[in-house]
Amino acid sequence: MSGVLIDKLRALVGDANVLTEGDLGAWEQDWRKRSRGKALAVVRPGSTQQVAEVVKACAAAGRAIVPQGGNTGLAVGSIPDESGTQIVLSLQRMNAIRGVDAANLTMTVEAGCVLQTLQETAEKAGFLFPLSLAAEGSCTIGGNLATNAGGTQVLRYGNARELCLGLEVVTPQGGIWEGTSGLRKDNTGYDLRDLMIGSEGTLGIITAATLKLYPLPAARLTAWAAVPTLEQAVELLGLAHKRLGAGLTGFEVMGRFALSLVAKHFPALRVPFIEDDGVPYCVLLENSDNESEDHARARFEALLETAFEAGCVSDAVVAESLTQAHQLWHVRESIPLAQAEEGLNIKHDISIPVSRIPAFVEQTDALLEDELPGVRLVNFGHLGDGNLHYNVQAPAGAHNGDFLREHEDRINTLVYEAVRQFEGSFSAEHGVGSLKVETLEKHKSPVALEMMRAIKRGLDPQNLLNPGRVIRLT
Amino acid sequence: MSGVLIDKLRALVGDANVLTEGDLGAWEQDWRKRSRGKALAVVRPGSTQQVAEVVKACAAAGRAIVPQGGNTGLAVGSIPDESGTQIVLSLQRMNAIRGVDAANLTMTVEAGCVLQTLQETAEKAGFLFPLSLAAEGSCTIGGNLATNAGGTQVLRYGNARELCLGLEVVTPQGGIWEGTSGLRKDNTGYDLRDLMIGSEGTLGIITAATLKLYPLPAARLTAWAAVPTLEQAVELLGLAHKRLGAGLTGFEVMGRFALSLVAKHFPALRVPFIEDDGVPYCVLLENSDNESEDHARARFEALLETAFEAGCVSDAVVAESLTQAHQLWHVRESIPLAQAEEGLNIKHDISIPVSRIPAFVEQTDALLEDELPGVRLVNFGHLGDGNLHYNVQAPAGAHNGDFLREHEDRINTLVYEAVRQFEGSFSAEHGVGSLKVETLEKHKSPVALEMMRAIKRGLDPQNLLNPGRVIRLT
Repeated sequence: MSGVLIDKLRALVGDANVLTEGDLGAWEQDWRKRSRGKALAVVRPGSTQQVAEVVKACAAAGRAIVPQGGNTGLAVGSIPDESGTQIVLSLQRMNAIRGVDAANLTMTVEAGCVLQTLQETAEKAGFLFPLSLAAEGSCTIGGNLATNAGGTQVLRYGNARELCLGLEVVTPQGGIWEGTSGLRKDNTGYDLRDLMIGSEGTLGIITAATLKLYPLPAARLTAWAAVPTLEQAVELLGLAHKRLGAGLTGFEVMGRFALSLVAKHFPALRVPFIEDDGVPYCVLLENSDNESEDHARARFEALLETAFEAGCVSDAVVAESLTQAHQLWHVRESIPLAQAEEGLNIKHDISIPVSRIPAFVEQTDALLEDELPGVRLVNFGHLGDGNLHYNVQAPAGAHNGDFLREHEDRINTLVYEAVRQFEGSFSAEHGVGSLKVETLEKHKSPVALEMMRAIKRGLDPQNLLNPGRVIRLT
Repeated sequence: MSGVLIDKLRALVGDANVLTEGDLGAWEQDWRKRSRGKALAVVRPGSTQQVAEVVKACAAAGRAIVPQGGNTGLAVGSIPDESGTQIVLSLQRMNAIRGVDAANLTMTVEAGCVLQTLQETAEKAGFLFPLSLAAEGSCTIGGNLATNAGGTQVLRYGNARELCLGLEVVTPQGGIWEGTSGLRKDNTGYDLRDLMIGSEGTLGIITAATLKLYPLPAARLTAWAAVPTLEQAVELLGLAHKRLGAGLTGFEVMGRFALSLVAKHFPALRVPFIEDDGVPYCVLLENSDNESEDHARARFEALLETAFEAGCVSDAVVAESLTQAHQLWHVRESIPLAQAEEGLNIKHDISIPVSRIPAFVEQTDALLEDELPGVRLVNFGHLGDGNLHYNVQAPAGAHNGDFLREHEDRINTLVYEAVRQFEGSFSAEHGVGSLKVETLEKHKSPVALEMMRAIKRGLDPQNLLNPGRVIRLT
């Protein structure tokens, strides 16, 4: 049976684009190397029409399809299961820039374009495409949209969702929905675009998108501030919103322990204020200005002065050059790597209403320290979006692997229950994939789960696209 | 049968809140007085729980429900049909502000809150709630969200959709989905929020929402510029984006004939540059500044100077005072009224990619003038959003009513076909309601229509909520 399908797929996309032998690890293993599946075949169509034909062939054969972009997801949503029966449909060959429309501030691109390529394409045309995240050198825009990726510029420009005006999608029946609209306003029926975005390939396969562009800022400055408490970090955020308005494009918070890991494992990096024991949190602020660098600097310094007078900043530096700014961002971005150097750890990608973050952290820190004495909390994230990477590391000297095996479930339960109590989300930007399917079932209301199932059943009655991911049909 | 249901509804919400007699025109007639339906009863629940109970009772009795807010929609989507069998469910009694969270930049409000009340609530707390449109004194936020309302600040802040972080919704089964999230990031399953927004009460009944707040700008300035052509208006827009960045909060274009109607019917209003025959279009620009009025003025003047030198502005004034600014906005907002004074006309609420607007207008103007000599085109709108109110008025001296009866269908066909050719939308901000159901069926692809039907069937299998609106089940 499967031989017939493989032959059909080869006829559709060419022999070279149906992979069944050799090392398929790049498509079968997840980014964090937590699990590995087995594909019946990896199929790499080169056009929307081919994607549609592949889907029809798989539908006729009753074979499930796992759509895949750069395979950099953190929730195990883009690799096949272990059955050896699923088709991985890789969009990587579909990487054309279909067009840049300067006067409309949009570009239309295919799903397999690498995010960094799109940033560069925009910049060459004199614009900013603001989506920016750690995996930008290998992730693809199709995957970014399918998972509604976040990153460091969400505060000002929103998630991937907010950067997308339209999509082209292949449906589970192999139909092509031409929705690559360049329109900022279009109230003609249900919002199919946003339904597809974040559905992680379970409702349709994104093959192209029309994305928003922004004018390139004239200057972008970075500051680093020491704050006495998390409450005062929140106060600083409010002040920055008021003073910088849409100029505030970054607001990252980093706990002392997180920064100490960077200092320990990357001694070549200069971590500001790390010598001062009395600094529990630092904040990285970014100010983008459409006027000039001088103007940006004057506004930034005025803000920090006010914050200093108000007592919500104890010390601060503004980067003097682009190199210094990159160094500060580099410290922030090195936290996950420093943490990996320190050993295995338990990651949480949570969000909480900004106003409640200080109370959440205080209560949850105390809870975990009480239950697991000596536990070390690596707390950092996009405070401006209410998004914390609240990670848990074994006590100093403990065996990381043993600690994880013994305590991971319990720690997840404690953290997610606290998140729920504070009306937060257990997955702010990483999605559900297969990793958090059970967490979703546990934490979403039955009403929401039933609506999601009705949508999945309605659009994909064969349960053909990425089955078992996001929402299971029971 | 219906007597039993009415008794049940009276028991649920109180006799005073089930209206069956007297003049029910306020609930049965649409805003533009184009049509009038007949309700079995108007029911006015006072709480989410009551809404849910009402829905359950109607579902058990198989009675359709038409949810209604301020009943100010322009697409006839919130009045009952003529059968006398439908229940109008008015949300107007649910008008509590549940809370303002300053540090989170959000407020949570019930569906029946009047938009203007919410603008005032935000301002009292020191914030801006930017949704702003003509009906703001009577429309409700539930209706704004159900129709994804647009208005004059979309350029900077987006449509109603972009201003909403979470919803509370009663499902067609009478379940309550508690989704009033104050989170800016939450990737846990399908985007139910955006599916409900813009679905015009056909998938669920919005009972409350959590909305985004913005810092109040320090200054807001308005300018009025004469532009030689529509191409140059688009060029000015690009320049304004680049120079003002997010400070550009308004960019409205107005054709000479539209402005001449204002001058004719409201002679007390001063319409800048109207004496100059050589000005085919004017643009109203708004610059919001988080720094100071002086700074705003300097930036604005620098922009207009550059535009003047580039030849895309032939003359311009910047309002010297708030009063002057209001006067300029008042001219813009008087166009629909002036048009009504001139007589019945055919309205189109269309969007086109900004870059293609000049060609669309040139081609469609010529087409209509060719087909209907002497026809007068009232062209104005939110150019920054690609949204034109491209309205058609009978030739001077012709009988407006006769002209409409004879030519409305043909004109709509011509305009919507041109819109389609330019990859635009036949309903940018007004929605579908019942007025544009057939247009939707004609202009959407079969794939999109089938997805919409699958969603409607999946979520509302009884076809109970606002049946026949937006998408018909066939």
